[in-house]
Amino acid sequence: MKQTLKKRIEKIRLLIMDVDGVLTNGEIVIDHEGKELKVFHVQDGFSIVFFKRLGFKTAIISARGSEAVQFRAQDLGIDRVYMDVRPKTKAYEKLLEEFGLKDEEVCFLADDLPDVCVFKKVGFAVAVNNAVEEVKKISHYVTKKEGGKGAVREVIELILKVQGKWDNILKEVGFS
Amino acid sequence: MKQTLKKRIEKIRLLIMDVDGVLTNGEIVIDHEGKELKVFHVQDGFSIVFFKRLGFKTAIISARGSEAVQFRAQDLGIDRVYMDVRPKTKAYEKLLEEFGLKDEEVCFLADDLPDVCVFKKVGFAVAVNNAVEEVKKISHYVTKKEGGKGAVREVIELILKVQGKWDNILKEVGFS
Amino acid sequence: MKQTLKKRIEKIRLLIMDVDGVLTNGEIVIDHEGKELKVFHVQDGFSIVFFKRLGFKTAIISARGSEAVQFRAQDLGIDRVYMDVRPKTKAYEKLLEEFGLKDEEVCFLADDLPDVCVFKKVGFAVAVNNAVEEVKKISHYVTKKEGGKGAVREVIELILKVQGKWDNILKEVGFS
Amino acid sequence: MKQTLKKRIEKIRLLIMDVDGVLTNGEIVIDHEGKELKVFHVQDGFSIVFFKRLGFKTAIISARGSEAVQFRAQDLGIDRVYMDVRPKTKAYEKLLEEFGLKDEEVCFLADDLPDVCVFKKVGFAVAVNNAVEEVKKISHYVTKKEGGKGAVREVIELILKVQGKWDNILKEVGFS
Repeated sequence: MKQTLKKRIEKIRLLIMDVDGVLTNGEIVIDHEGKELKVFHVQDGFSIVFFKRLGFKTAIISARGSEAVQFRAQDLGIDRVYMDVRPKTKAYEKLLEEFGLKDEEVCFLADDLPDVCVFKKVGFAVAVNNAVEEVKKISHYVTKKEGGKGAVREVIELILKVQGKWDNILKEVGFS
Repeated sequence: MKQTLKKRIEKIRLLIMDVDGVLTNGEIVIDHEGKELKVFHVQDGFSIVFFKRLGFKTAIISARGSEAVQFRAQDLGIDRVYMDVRPKTKAYEKLLEEFGLKDEEVCFLADDLPDVCVFKKVGFAVAVNNAVEEVKKISHYVTKKEGGKGAVREVIELILKVQGKWDNILKEVGFS
Repeated sequence: MKQTLKKRIEKIRLLIMDVDGVLTNGEIVIDHEGKELKVFHVQDGFSIVFFKRLGFKTAIISARGSEAVQFRAQDLGIDRVYMDVRPKTKAYEKLLEEFGLKDEEVCFLADDLPDVCVFKKVGFAVAVNNAVEEVKKISHYVTKKEGGKGAVREVIELILKVQGKWDNILKEVGFS
Repeated sequence: MKQTLKKRIEKIRLLIMDVDGVLTNGEIVIDHEGKELKVFHVQDGFSIVFFKRLGFKTAIISARGSEAVQFRAQDLGIDRVYMDVRPKTKAYEKLLEEFGLKDEEVCFLADDLPDVCVFKKVGFAVAVNNAVEEVKKISHYVTKKEGGKGAVREVIELILKVQGKWDNILKEVGFS
């Protein structure tokens, strides 16, 4: 890994995630009453819980609204959930204020054009593998995994490894 | 891109989409009460909203009926939704009349044999990657992406780029 | 195609389909009340409707029960639906009697071991691409497509083409 | 197959399965009321039923809770279901006691770090193909199939073949 990238990652204290295409694979599942189902991934969930326990902050910013996201966020202990937000910049600035953090301490995980306004500000801008080309081009890192299939897990692992905290997890789960 | 194809695309003012296999990946999801869930794609949705804002018209023609489609269409601001239509020609002719458009100003995005009657009329006939061979053979263009996985987005991007309007989106989302 | 295979297909009058893994991709989707959702494919559906209109019979034999299957079968006009059937031989013999057909006039589309008892009797035994090895080995034909992703469509097309009836569809949908 | 692996498999009397990522492909499907749907696989189900009939014991240990899992487990006749268990060791020790079995008689099928504490104890530790690297590294066997797509079936087949009991199934379904 390049030193410049490593330095970016070392500063991260907050992980912001888009929902559709990042915490999910981009599918919008709608039933006959117009209600939405969301399809998350179990390995993402485990890593978010652990990440939080190590003192990191997590947040969701989505241009769409969904009750399913609220339930999932609550279950995982995600600190802040901003939905129906267009553009995303306002919610982002509120987050910085609430947590007393700077741009360089934030990692944003995104997939599409509405994310660009925030994506260009953060210290560590990560595009999921299924992101559109424009987002990938201006990212600091592109995940190997796709959204909803472990992309969040991959980023959290990366941050924890660079910051030397991954071994905490391994010890806790039973690796000596 | 060939000049003949470019000329076709330059005239497009209306995008007509089939539902199953085009806005979805062809899955028919049925619950124990016979109600249907539909699985759309988030990146398609964003592009449809933007397409409309640039003054284009959008419509759905489907041989099947589904309440979920109505909710999704309303959410995205799709101008007309014709469902339970067999054959599709009638709905197509009604659309031309309602919008005061000619065949050559219409792009139709399709996947299967019931689409052929309309497919052969329009100025820009696009087959999704998962379309049956017969539809692909008589198409002007085959998408790289599959239905329900970004095929609509790909076509809208193509139309906007050929017509020199894609940069509008990029500027609006924060690319300078 | 080999002459022996062609002769098998020429005699087919009835198509029997297993459900899970054949009309679906084998996923068993269960909600919090224990109710099942089923995921079918739109291109299969179109071909079943057309197949029936040309005078062929269709039936479902499944070892499991599902209300969603009843709704789908009714929608497509499938002639007989036998569910919760173990072993499948009884339902099969009843079908032969009801339709006045012989083994050699039946095509059975299957994926797993509980299908073997019937699979060994029929004139045209087709394994879906996702079938277990044992079923593939004793089949007359293995589909290129997977169950729930167009395998049924592929078999119906094959039967109609060998019997010289595929052009009927093409003409009806608008190919001259 | 190596003799050491064969000897491990010959002793197995109990199969313990994780849920998310093992009996499913890791998707967490949540509706607008926070209720979960689970996506299992039909070929896994058939093999679990048969496995049990041959006298083997089966159990589920999951760190999460889900009503859908209860329904599926009941349908398949799975002997014990432990959910909301963190860490998994307690439930594991209870299982050994209830069935009067030793570590070496247990196969555990797992995908992620919370499984490690039990994974290191059992006689035959199997990682699904979609397991995280850490789990694969300490496994005795990695499945070719993914969780929710036949991984359980593959392991049951493997156990039955090594123990010379697979032919029982083949005879019962109609192979002479």
